[in-house]
Amino acid sequence: MTTDTRMDQLLLDVNLATMTDNGRPYGAIEHAAIGWRDGLIVHVGPMSELSGDPHALAHRVDSMPGAWITPGLVDCHTHLVFGGDRATEFEQRLEGVSYEEIARKGGGIVSSVRATRMADEDELLAQSLPRARALVADGVTTLEIKSGYGLEPDAERRMLRVARRIGRELGITVRTSFLGLHALPPEYRERRDDYVGLVCETMLPALADEELVDAVDAFCETIGFTHAETQRLFERARDLGLPVKLHAEQLSDLGGAALVASFEGLSADHLEWASEDGVRAMAAAGTVAVMLPGAYYALRDTRPPPIERFRQHGVPMAVATDLNPGTSPLLSLRLAMSMACTLFRMTPEEALRGATVHAARALGLDDRGQLASGLRADLTVWNVGHPAELSYWIGGNLRRDSWVAGERLIVA
Amino acid sequence: MTTDTRMDQLLLDVNLATMTDNGRPYGAIEHAAIGWRDGLIVHVGPMSELSGDPHALAHRVDSMPGAWITPGLVDCHTHLVFGGDRATEFEQRLEGVSYEEIARKGGGIVSSVRATRMADEDELLAQSLPRARALVADGVTTLEIKSGYGLEPDAERRMLRVARRIGRELGITVRTSFLGLHALPPEYRERRDDYVGLVCETMLPALADEELVDAVDAFCETIGFTHAETQRLFERARDLGLPVKLHAEQLSDLGGAALVASFEGLSADHLEWASEDGVRAMAAAGTVAVMLPGAYYALRDTRPPPIERFRQHGVPMAVATDLNPGTSPLLSLRLAMSMACTLFRMTPEEALRGATVHAARALGLDDRGQLASGLRADLTVWNVGHPAELSYWIGGNLRRDSWVAGERLIVA
Ligand SMILES: [Zn+2]
Ligand SMILES: [Zn+2]
Repeated sequence: MTTDTRMDQLLLDVNLATMTDNGRPYGAIEHAAIGWRDGLIVHVGPMSELSGDPHALAHRVDSMPGAWITPGLVDCHTHLVFGGDRATEFEQRLEGVSYEEIARKGGGIVSSVRATRMADEDELLAQSLPRARALVADGVTTLEIKSGYGLEPDAERRMLRVARRIGRELGITVRTSFLGLHALPPEYRERRDDYVGLVCETMLPALADEELVDAVDAFCETIGFTHAETQRLFERARDLGLPVKLHAEQLSDLGGAALVASFEGLSADHLEWASEDGVRAMAAAGTVAVMLPGAYYALRDTRPPPIERFRQHGVPMAVATDLNPGTSPLLSLRLAMSMACTLFRMTPEEALRGATVHAARALGLDDRGQLASGLRADLTVWNVGHPAELSYWIGGNLRRDSWVAGERLIVA
Repeated sequence: MTTDTRMDQLLLDVNLATMTDNGRPYGAIEHAAIGWRDGLIVHVGPMSELSGDPHALAHRVDSMPGAWITPGLVDCHTHLVFGGDRATEFEQRLEGVSYEEIARKGGGIVSSVRATRMADEDELLAQSLPRARALVADGVTTLEIKSGYGLEPDAERRMLRVARRIGRELGITVRTSFLGLHALPPEYRERRDDYVGLVCETMLPALADEELVDAVDAFCETIGFTHAETQRLFERARDLGLPVKLHAEQLSDLGGAALVASFEGLSADHLEWASEDGVRAMAAAGTVAVMLPGAYYALRDTRPPPIERFRQHGVPMAVATDLNPGTSPLLSLRLAMSMACTLFRMTPEEALRGATVHAARALGLDDRGQLASGLRADLTVWNVGHPAELSYWIGGNLRRDSWVAGERLIVA
């Protein structure tokens, strides 16, 4: 072996939750070693398979006795770029002010749209970066961020540019989703077709052309956009070669799950009201079901998504924060995992799979989410004695270290 | 003014949630200054009241424009000293294993008792310290810790000694509660009177004599100890001059709230099933109602405590984590505040009052919990634009700095 082929780094005496299908819970390999070179994992296996001096194998060798390592967490559904917050609205509701009254005062999503439109790019970055940093501090190394509080060409562009800048700033992957069909902007109240046309024919092609769009999303709901409007958007996305995903069946069953599946969509998200047919269609299309228990918690919802049905049909389940100012001001993916277990009755292993390999798949990424040779060296080291603890503890900081593509992540 | 009377430190350009009754929400003073000397607050007021060079007023002057400062948070109900954890039990339950099966395998509280008894003092400290540190990292500066997983003289003593050591180790106040009547230890299954006698006549006096007991607590419940057993303990506590508090009315109404009130107890905790009479008795006695929404969340309880009744009768409400391995593995008091708002419909201001002044009162401490001259300089500085954000954001690290009795807290 020449020095050229030495690994960049090798971690010894660790426990690995590889999340591969190695026949063991969590794809676990205990008392193991993992190493990488040029940003890719090149060695995963038990310590007993290592022979000779580890320093002959890698430039840098660290021993972390007993630590558990998972794939770097993937938060596949966030709206974390926005202006302002809605804390005082949260407070008003708890003080007994009605939704109507709050809406009359300009509250609700409209207030986030207003604050987002008013913020310039640097302001939006300054406001959003601490939220992304909170997720990263809790173990996330890949993040999805949606537009959808701009609802006009410049503001949507600004959101997506800020999303890209967050990725560069933190040294992590940020995947963007264009969510122009998030809400009807107030100025289009009487002209919804014009707005849908603007989104499909002007905004989407322009933003895609600027390479700001990794996927296309919509809010298909009675209070959002119709099945037909969503379909129009998805057809446009297909023309442009962009994958789709969908906020589907959160409050009612509009057939969104089947719709996004018919476009071989990456994911259908929320799904509290998903029908058997919708679930079947997702299974056939390989569309991931993204569980968002933060919104369920914050809205005191009582109808969990049909977890057992997803299991029966083999639909992969992801778990994400849905981080947004209105219905899920949730700054921790591990907390979403806790809620997925406690509120949705997913198992801790399903929750971790949902925040790693299935979340990566919901973003169309097959180069991460597991610990295996050839995949990106995205990994998080945890101060736990068992991977179930990641869903068991509610809050706290369990993260010890992360590497992204083999580079150690510094969380400021 | 001579240099002798200068303050030790003065913070300028801050916003203060004093939690005093100054007629404003949160007792707020915006654009304010706060200063202390010898561990006590000596100046609280608007910037406009400061005249002259601040450096003539204090040895150290810092400006923190826009930051919000609250009293250091007080977590008035935790069981954070214990051996082991119950993450795999949590996992088994979600994988469909029944409670009975888990109990048969030695799970449940018995497993925590076993692990706690097996751990020596240093091991117990090493296991518990990260949990205390997590609370402190989230803004806590005063902490209550109960015994109750030892259930034999030496192990109970060890727990309380570890609690004291945590206080010294972290430089915060730890108040201890003796919870010998937490569960009947397995070896006393056929001799419950003997165990109650041991607790009341041997353990309590001995531990009190060693100054390990700041208050006396019990779990008064059908699956815990009876009204009569609790009363016997409380009488013993009264003989010893120790204040009492009680786990009351969590699962059923055994009249615990009225019982603890009849001893002018510091607090009744949980209270989901508290009756009108119980609430009245608490109001008359000045007993604090401690809300523990972490257990409510983890147990998927559906009956919140009677918040509106507490309000009507003027019973002060505190909020605490109940941090414990079985029913509330909750490592953040701010998360308990979020749950108090979202699940119990407390307002963010009530939640913050519940984690400051009312929590201090639940521990019998009247020297903290508000920002006012003469009180301890225990304060936490937050990266928020409004104090409602402390309950609004779910997770994340919002703490910027803390001082305890005027000393800056270093969280390792
Ligand atoms: Zn969403
Ligand atoms: Zn308790």
